[in-house]
Amino acid sequence: MELRGKVVVAQGGGPTAVINQSLVGAVLESRKFPQITQVYGAIGGMRGIVDERFMDLTQETTHNLERVAVTPSSALSSTRDKPDEKYCEEIFKVFRAHDVRYFFYIGGNDSSDTVRIVNEQAERTGYEFRAIHIPKTIDNDLMVNDHTPGYPSAARFVAQSFMGVNLDNRALPGVHIMVVMGRHAGFLTAASAIAQSSPDDGPHLIYLPERAFEMDKFLSDVKTMHDRHGRCLIAVSEGIQDKHGVPVLSTLMETERDAHGNVQLSGTGALGEQLANQVKEKLGLKRVRSDTLGYLQRSFIGCVSDVDQREAREVGEKAAQYAIWHNVDGSITIHRTGNYAVDYQLTSLREIAAKTRLMPDAFINKAGNNVTEAFTNYLRPLLGSGMPEAARLRAPIVPAILAK
Amino acid sequence: MELRGKVVVAQGGGPTAVINQSLVGAVLESRKFPQITQVYGAIGGMRGIVDERFMDLTQETTHNLERVAVTPSSALSSTRDKPDEKYCEEIFKVFRAHDVRYFFYIGGNDSSDTVRIVNEQAERTGYEFRAIHIPKTIDNDLMVNDHTPGYPSAARFVAQSFMGVNLDNRALPGVHIMVVMGRHAGFLTAASAIAQSSPDDGPHLIYLPERAFEMDKFLSDVKTMHDRHGRCLIAVSEGIQDKHGVPVLSTLMETERDAHGNVQLSGTGALGEQLANQVKEKLGLKRVRSDTLGYLQRSFIGCVSDVDQREAREVGEKAAQYAIWHNVDGSITIHRTGNYAVDYQLTSLREIAAKTRLMPDAFINKAGNNVTEAFTNYLRPLLGSGMPEAARLRAPIVPAILAK
Repeated sequence: MELRGKVVVAQGGGPTAVINQSLVGAVLESRKFPQITQVYGAIGGMRGIVDERFMDLTQETTHNLERVAVTPSSALSSTRDKPDEKYCEEIFKVFRAHDVRYFFYIGGNDSSDTVRIVNEQAERTGYEFRAIHIPKTIDNDLMVNDHTPGYPSAARFVAQSFMGVNLDNRALPGVHIMVVMGRHAGFLTAASAIAQSSPDDGPHLIYLPERAFEMDKFLSDVKTMHDRHGRCLIAVSEGIQDKHGVPVLSTLMETERDAHGNVQLSGTGALGEQLANQVKEKLGLKRVRSDTLGYLQRSFIGCVSDVDQREAREVGEKAAQYAIWHNVDGSITIHRTGNYAVDYQLTSLREIAAKTRLMPDAFINKAGNNVTEAFTNYLRPLLGSGMPEAARLRAPIVPAILAK
Repeated sequence: MELRGKVVVAQGGGPTAVINQSLVGAVLESRKFPQITQVYGAIGGMRGIVDERFMDLTQETTHNLERVAVTPSSALSSTRDKPDEKYCEEIFKVFRAHDVRYFFYIGGNDSSDTVRIVNEQAERTGYEFRAIHIPKTIDNDLMVNDHTPGYPSAARFVAQSFMGVNLDNRALPGVHIMVVMGRHAGFLTAASAIAQSSPDDGPHLIYLPERAFEMDKFLSDVKTMHDRHGRCLIAVSEGIQDKHGVPVLSTLMETERDAHGNVQLSGTGALGEQLANQVKEKLGLKRVRSDTLGYLQRSFIGCVSDVDQREAREVGEKAAQYAIWHNVDGSITIHRTGNYAVDYQLTSLREIAAKTRLMPDAFINKAGNNVTEAFTNYLRPLLGSGMPEAARLRAPIVPAILAK
């Protein structure tokens, strides 16, 4: 039997370059079904639902929706609120009042857990209701998925950043440490490896949260590479930890926690600067620089993977199809079926919610300071078409005459 | 009378996205003249000349040169050395030994001063020799020029960064401080204003080195904007100074100086973090973030202005034409002749060398915390074609039912 009523779409957590593709996919697909009376967008994520702040996207033009789809960051705005049972009761009061029967929540693992709670509450109270989690995270750390929408575009930004900084570091040699986002999973930091085109190209070293960070080993790695290449470009994940699981950064400064209890690691240059100081002091190297990619990697406009755009659109469409056609709940997951082809499935929320996928061992080299070819083979098709290339001069060297 | 001999091209200072366009323009144009016996590239700037490290670019394929032209950063590598009279004597020994009669140096104001010294030394010693400075700097601070190659692409990167971070800040509101390169001139920081599309778009405040920075005024500006918009995005130049001309950063930490005596301001997040701490402490605001754009703004691959590419190519070609056809010395300068059209002239090195152009008063608002429309009108045609646009949802708000 068809479930008649309204749809609410919301966006949670940090923005990505393609999160609006999923929004527009879910909205346009939902608008096709006659049993859908209206399609609302919640302004400001779950908080917007509690506060009854909705935008009627049934009345938005298709043309403008398509323009929003190619705009990065969450067009409906987002929230860092993490709803508990009581919070979800408030949400249901609003859903009942507005006759909302379908809920699509675009977000990462915290958001999928919210969908799980909302769903279980609907079941308990006997309110006929479908809720689907639409995957999104630049961290690429959702279980079951081959990869998650938002990651390919962020990875492309990181790859292009390192391609450029590698050329910069080659022109003016020194040690350059670049800190990349990723609290637990190293996928985004690992994307820097795409810049390794010629054997002397950086990043020469890549440090991931999946491997215990040892300062002595780090310093000897840097010395080896600097001796070999006369320079050293290093990719470091913001979430690197020592062997006891203590974040290297949290030992260095007072930290801030968000509503989920997560340490706030982005937006600070402290980790890079501390590592740079160690290299200067312990190795006696002079030209040592650090940069922290910061918020640019999740919101830079004009650096996007077309593969990512297409898939983000489709997971939004699929959510509407599963909920409205098939009347089922869950999380949309992406599965690689060829090189390169994907398929979408509906997976139980319990398999996704509040869990974290890390880099598999096959993607990390034995020394724990770089990635493997298996990883770059995995990543390359996700980056999309038109990746820039770096060319270098290959003319012969002129023999010296004065030969000092 | 035709001056027969070799050409040497070199690249100085920090890389830009289009510095290789100028290299390739000078090389290809030089190769057309029969009196040019060979075209050498100096590896590592002036240091490479002293060390006799040349690459024979006469033997490089045109096809590969074209690929290098669209690759950012200095393909010949660069140097931070600042030659004095003695250093230049060493250079002349090498030039004489290799029969070098033409020297093209691509760089900023320090590089133009080097060309001036080399030129004067040639005159004094009666060595028949032509030296031309080809302009390049992301800081846009060369005298006489309407703008300088490298600036438009870096400005585009800054503009696209702020467009994205503005959307991010809108989705998850708070105070966000972004630190942009620019030691003395605010042109690059000012480019952030391109993100100001709707009246509530950031950056809401822009602080430039051309105006004395006052902490109290800054804090009251931030409060005003945060009260008005519920958020505040701020662009700050790394080179902001107090009314005594003391860099705000240098009062905060130990700094490093390069061979030119310049304080090393890039590659550190200290300025942004210090300002963020002030906002947190003095205004009691909680979600305050800072990012430092760092080296990405001069070397990011895949964000370039096609206008900048074209002009960078032409100043390289013009250098070869002036020197080889017209047998004159100087600095190539860019002059705006329409909206939008430019012409190139040869200007005396004494008008360019070691001087710094700042933002004109007409480009800065009265309060000294934003730019004027005159500035954005100046900048817009330089950014080139295909600038991304940010769209927002415009659907009607749904009336509340529970109306809490």
